[in-house]
Amino acid sequence: MATAAEAAAMRQAITLAARALGATSPNPVVGCVVLDATGTVVGEGYHQRAGGPHAEVHALRAAGERARGGTAVVTLEPCNHTGRTGPCAQALVDAGIARVVYAVPDPTATATGGAHRLRSAGVEVEQGLLEGEARAGNIAWLTAVKSGRPYVTWKYAATLDGRIAAADRSSRWITSPESRADVHRLRAEADAVVVGSGTMRADDPHLAVRGIEGATQPLRVVVDTEGTAVKPGARILDDAAPTLVAVARDAATELPATELPDAVRLPRATGGGRGLDIPALLDTLHERGVRSVLLEGGPTLAGAFVAAGAVDRVVGYLAPVLLGAGPTALADAGIGTIADALRLDITETVRVGPDLRITAVPNSPEYKER
Amino acid sequence: MATAAEAAAMRQAITLAARALGATSPNPVVGCVVLDATGTVVGEGYHQRAGGPHAEVHALRAAGERARGGTAVVTLEPCNHTGRTGPCAQALVDAGIARVVYAVPDPTATATGGAHRLRSAGVEVEQGLLEGEARAGNIAWLTAVKSGRPYVTWKYAATLDGRIAAADRSSRWITSPESRADVHRLRAEADAVVVGSGTMRADDPHLAVRGIEGATQPLRVVVDTEGTAVKPGARILDDAAPTLVAVARDAATELPATELPDAVRLPRATGGGRGLDIPALLDTLHERGVRSVLLEGGPTLAGAFVAAGAVDRVVGYLAPVLLGAGPTALADAGIGTIADALRLDITETVRVGPDLRITAVPNSPEYKER
Repeated sequence: MATAAEAAAMRQAITLAARALGATSPNPVVGCVVLDATGTVVGEGYHQRAGGPHAEVHALRAAGERARGGTAVVTLEPCNHTGRTGPCAQALVDAGIARVVYAVPDPTATATGGAHRLRSAGVEVEQGLLEGEARAGNIAWLTAVKSGRPYVTWKYAATLDGRIAAADRSSRWITSPESRADVHRLRAEADAVVVGSGTMRADDPHLAVRGIEGATQPLRVVVDTEGTAVKPGARILDDAAPTLVAVARDAATELPATELPDAVRLPRATGGGRGLDIPALLDTLHERGVRSVLLEGGPTLAGAFVAAGAVDRVVGYLAPVLLGAGPTALADAGIGTIADALRLDITETVRVGPDLRITAVPNSPEYKER
Repeated sequence: MATAAEAAAMRQAITLAARALGATSPNPVVGCVVLDATGTVVGEGYHQRAGGPHAEVHALRAAGERARGGTAVVTLEPCNHTGRTGPCAQALVDAGIARVVYAVPDPTATATGGAHRLRSAGVEVEQGLLEGEARAGNIAWLTAVKSGRPYVTWKYAATLDGRIAAADRSSRWITSPESRADVHRLRAEADAVVVGSGTMRADDPHLAVRGIEGATQPLRVVVDTEGTAVKPGARILDDAAPTLVAVARDAATELPATELPDAVRLPRATGGGRGLDIPALLDTLHERGVRSVLLEGGPTLAGAFVAAGAVDRVVGYLAPVLLGAGPTALADAGIGTIADALRLDITETVRVGPDLRITAVPNSPEYKER
């Protein structure tokens, strides 16, 4: 049984881990708190970026000799893997840690076995403390490990009647400054931000994170099937963040290499769909280390992701506004009748300024398995 | 200064008043609690239906002789008007009430003056205790008194992406049984439920209140401009509740008097709008004693009400469902650009089963004054 001090330490470790969301891929976020033998916090740390020290190493360094005989509380099973850093399990043993409490087992083939190594070295090991919370904090990475593709959050901003712009396509602004600032937080937590050619043409978006100090910039991705939407001088081509343009293999356009820092050719959607093949796009992003995607695309691209079964979470910013005309948030998702509707569960509703942020996840196991 | 006992009594009076929502028009809902000289509750009552005794009379009857020297706590200024019942102000004086605490002044020309009569008779009078809450509880009647037309609540049920049906028009069911039960509560609190010809044709709705014991049935109103949507055998023509069919003055149709218990001819919308003139419809309903309307119409009728500045409150049931195609909740509201959007304030969000109920009111004074 974990102690109250260990539970408090786990909560703190989960909070610490979340600080690095968007900065650690392809690694998970991890937080660690070291308690001495009396249960006093003597060290804290979190995995800050891929290639940097793991959470346990930061926390052990902070604790120093006070770690000896103490307890390490970690959000994820300590690794047993020598990559860019040595195995954390061994580091814990070497530091004289007597007990390790971790929340979530490591699901990866390479890193797993940490608990076994710890037990073999005589360390007391307990798993499962606040596992649900810790899992939620690492949901993108855990889902990506399981599915082999990045975790996709579809974000939209709409009126109460589901419009993303008025009849004349004007949309500045439907949602409040508070909601728009909140979107920058979502971007900072994502490894990549994806839009389609429609949004590119309509909004010339910048897509970099603004207003969050120290934020890791996401990869900006434009699904530009015909290679015609990203024009020279587009705001997305500045150096605020890396940019990737995805174009159909057989698109007629010659990509202007001097303008596009990075471009990839992908197959078109199969089965009569428009645009690019979404699984191929996600595979490409996964190969590049992307574990979480924020889909900020317009209705068409969002429809393609829904049709591909590639939306893991929906975050909708609903503004208390009525329009009665104009484009809707979602189009062409391949759903023709109510029985085929994509059903979700609302997991959170929060007021953001005058708006309402609704978070929901698909509730059908079939959808998740697609 | 009101005492704590008086504040508690006012809360109870507001709760009592709400029991009769939908049953008292053209009168307001009113609750009354009588305290004896020591502050003990000795009588409670509320105005149960138009033509029945007022709240004060019920409460005084319950209190009997214990009212003498006591305090009457009332949600609305006691009337000074002899209608179907005598003036409550005099009844309070006759019962020996020493002090009257009321929340909201009576805004009507005929009934006002109650506070003056009480003071003239030597009764101590205090106004304003929990006025905001009491006003909210009587908002339909108070708004109707001010505007001269019924208070209109537009209710819709939609997916997260704003659809009220799938591409093939199937819509059973987007929202949950809990949400649909909640709509019956809204109907019971309204004096009239209004739908348009599109909803009539698509759903053959019944529109009566089900599942709420003792509920007063609303007037069922169909805006059937051409007189062609209400067919013999329509569910709305049964005897579960009264029904009114509104038809254009110049509609070609001969109304089948034996089928339609009640029909009214109204002018068509002015200014190029489709359908009937919404202000004329609301005038007709007001003349019939309707003070609160629940608009359950489809997108076209809702658009006409919004365009006419005739929506006082929006209640949206949002189901965590995505469709990507199908009709939207609101159409043709005469809004072409974002600057002309109808802006609202969210006043409440509540989970209803798996769904979310969002209540919002227009935040623009210009809109309210239209």
